[in-house]
Amino acid sequence: MKEKRNIFEELDPIFHPRSVAILGASGKKGKVGRLFMERFMEAGFQKLYPVNPRQKEVLGVEAFPALTAIPSPVDLGLILTPPAEVIAAVKECAAKGVKGIIITTAGFGERGEKGKELEREIARIAREGNARVIGPNCLGIYCPSSRLPFPQGPGMESGSVGIVSQSGSFADHLALAGTTKGIRFSKGISSGNECDLGAIDFLEYLGEDPDTEIIILYLEGIKEGRRFYLLAREITKRKPIIAWKSGTTEAGARAAASHTGAFAGSRHLWDAVFRQTGMISVHSLEEVMDCLSLLYFQPLPRGRKVGIITGPGGPAVGTADACLDLGLEVPPFCEETKKKLQKIIAPVGTSVGNPVDMSIAAAIDPDVYGNVIRILGQDKNVDMLLVIGNGGKIFDRAIIEAMGELQKPLAVAIILPFELVMQDFKLLQGSSVPVYTDPRRAVNALAKVVGCVDRRAGFRSGSGPL
Amino acid sequence: MKEKRNIFEELDPIFHPRSVAILGASGKKGKVGRLFMERFMEAGFQKLYPVNPRQKEVLGVEAFPALTAIPSPVDLGLILTPPAEVIAAVKECAAKGVKGIIITTAGFGERGEKGKELEREIARIAREGNARVIGPNCLGIYCPSSRLPFPQGPGMESGSVGIVSQSGSFADHLALAGTTKGIRFSKGISSGNECDLGAIDFLEYLGEDPDTEIIILYLEGIKEGRRFYLLAREITKRKPIIAWKSGTTEAGARAAASHTGAFAGSRHLWDAVFRQTGMISVHSLEEVMDCLSLLYFQPLPRGRKVGIITGPGGPAVGTADACLDLGLEVPPFCEETKKKLQKIIAPVGTSVGNPVDMSIAAAIDPDVYGNVIRILGQDKNVDMLLVIGNGGKIFDRAIIEAMGELQKPLAVAIILPFELVMQDFKLLQGSSVPVYTDPRRAVNALAKVVGCVDRRAGFRSGSGPL
Repeated sequence: MKEKRNIFEELDPIFHPRSVAILGASGKKGKVGRLFMERFMEAGFQKLYPVNPRQKEVLGVEAFPALTAIPSPVDLGLILTPPAEVIAAVKECAAKGVKGIIITTAGFGERGEKGKELEREIARIAREGNARVIGPNCLGIYCPSSRLPFPQGPGMESGSVGIVSQSGSFADHLALAGTTKGIRFSKGISSGNECDLGAIDFLEYLGEDPDTEIIILYLEGIKEGRRFYLLAREITKRKPIIAWKSGTTEAGARAAASHTGAFAGSRHLWDAVFRQTGMISVHSLEEVMDCLSLLYFQPLPRGRKVGIITGPGGPAVGTADACLDLGLEVPPFCEETKKKLQKIIAPVGTSVGNPVDMSIAAAIDPDVYGNVIRILGQDKNVDMLLVIGNGGKIFDRAIIEAMGELQKPLAVAIILPFELVMQDFKLLQGSSVPVYTDPRRAVNALAKVVGCVDRRAGFRSGSGPL
Repeated sequence: MKEKRNIFEELDPIFHPRSVAILGASGKKGKVGRLFMERFMEAGFQKLYPVNPRQKEVLGVEAFPALTAIPSPVDLGLILTPPAEVIAAVKECAAKGVKGIIITTAGFGERGEKGKELEREIARIAREGNARVIGPNCLGIYCPSSRLPFPQGPGMESGSVGIVSQSGSFADHLALAGTTKGIRFSKGISSGNECDLGAIDFLEYLGEDPDTEIIILYLEGIKEGRRFYLLAREITKRKPIIAWKSGTTEAGARAAASHTGAFAGSRHLWDAVFRQTGMISVHSLEEVMDCLSLLYFQPLPRGRKVGIITGPGGPAVGTADACLDLGLEVPPFCEETKKKLQKIIAPVGTSVGNPVDMSIAAAIDPDVYGNVIRILGQDKNVDMLLVIGNGGKIFDRAIIEAMGELQKPLAVAIILPFELVMQDFKLLQGSSVPVYTDPRRAVNALAKVVGCVDRRAGFRSGSGPL
């Protein structure tokens, strides 16, 4: 089944089309055809051809009654038409000589055998026309560098994160969530029912894509288990993969079948796959974002030893627990570190052990955070830092300044209610500091990322300070 | 060791003092003595006596050189003085005949044997004066109904949630986090090093307190295991207890020893205690808040069967997984439910199974959420509802209206980035809808709360619609 080698050469042009035709484009409010038109126009995509037999122009752009009526070549056909018109639209695309066909329309394999038969026909027609198909039942491709948008409009700056997702809403939401936190993407692919190209093909593509350094994978089920396994094992040596495999319970598998028609596979099997391939296994969008923020903004840790720095003493205990629960270590500091800490931290109601508990002093003079970060930055017993505090401008600035010199990953947890410290999140994220609403979530992200370390041989280190 | 019965009669006056003296009150910026003065004044506490030999008035309130110089009786003494002056202050309090002494000052048992000896002396002096001690190394008492504040100023409206915490910052942060989300508290106690009164005493007190319906417990270590066990087992029959036991790992226990001097105990032991007493076991402030929101705002579920309603299809699969992972069921609906759903949900790209996947229709007409909630409200196979969506005013309103008639607990997860949907959180929380940033967190809270069901005999149902 495997496409012989040059998957990159075959797929890359689909991600960089010179022209796109939208079959089913519309000017009517509430229509998907309008939503995509608006997004492409906002994204600034240039050669856009709306196709609609009943409209002469769509949102001010000249429309064509059929694909064949477009005088110029078309590289990518985006099919938004009702299910009954999809086969005809695919035929048009094949006849026009497009390289890629995206079918967003649902109502195929996920509805049963008849739909699967239609999918096979779509794939056959496309193959005869030398076109590749993405979908049906998907949201297509997001590629900021070539102005291809996702429906929620996550922004068009390019970055280093690639998404492959069998769920359109996951890909779209992740791109939006990441953008909101200052993370930028290379490519996003919603692969849907995968009648032709599948998640594994796109994983292979992103593995070879020089613009992609971190890969996020959302899978409901896959068809070529062995190919996937070998590919993932190979890619994780160069690029971290954060993967969410859903549909691993009976209820989840049932939902997956009606969602994208996927066959899901057992939890145990997948646990083994994650362990052996070195992918980071996660179970929610929030967990994806928690891990991604760390991978994207910070260097990889050299080991699993955490130095914990906290202002309020309370979180010290639970955070140390969380580290040990989740497979990290909270080692004693070097003697020299303790001596340095004793010089800047009051003797009473505090601790210069690990966790460092600065107590009320930190609330009164948050600059002490910066000094403690600098001291632990020098301690060879510490591979990464977790800073816990109440936020505030001085706190934020102290951390951002200290991070500039730091050669280790750093994560911050602000324990006041998010509603009250949103400005801190904005400021810190804007300076490449991954910041969490709860220390346990930060610990979880650190622990998951440590899993990459053994495979890091050729990893580049995100946009972090290294 | 157990105080003979009337713990309620003994402790309740400490929570409702007619007058408070603040030993170490100060007008100087950055001093704890000023912080507490400001909070008491903001809270509107009336008979407040600052005690400071070097200031004639503090923030406009007449100050006294010593407790004994106060002409009126004093019910509660709050000691903020440096460690070396604490014993003298306790003696003053005992001589003055106060009922309760709160010692916030740190530097006692958590620093070793010498500190523990001092704590025994404090307890002895207080006992001779018939006073009870809270602390040292604590933040004291929060009691909105009698205008006793916590340092972060969480607000002074009364509610039904009581907090007992060996960490001051946990109690203070939880009260603030809860207040931000519309949750109101009866009492909060930071018990610190517990040289006299301990967490178990306060747990017993809240168990008997008619104003407290839900109890939150943060423990680092306890001294009277059997008393605690029997008490918790008895209280959970009437009031749910959400408990975080920290210091259960080696690193956590080490941190606890330097934080409040507590002896922590093993994880396995505590797992058994939670199971047998029916307390809800959690491991982070975020998890406390997730569970509390549900308990506070919603009725208890009658069983473990969840009906999942989602707009975007993607979250259906992972959410169903999460339910099964965490011990809930995602049952098929009754035939009648399916028929009703088919009438209001388009046939293509959707599912009228469980999860209900409404697809893009829900984005275009969020009113459909309300109708689906009403239908599942009638299905006897469904004990509770989890609604997943993108937020928006129509979405929020549809849910709030439908919840009015619902006799089952309902939780909402909004999957857009929190920064973009804060208004939805505010609106929904303001109408007693517990709302989460990720479906998995909502599922976790539902699953934890289901653990209460077997013990619910006499539970009242929060402020929910039942």
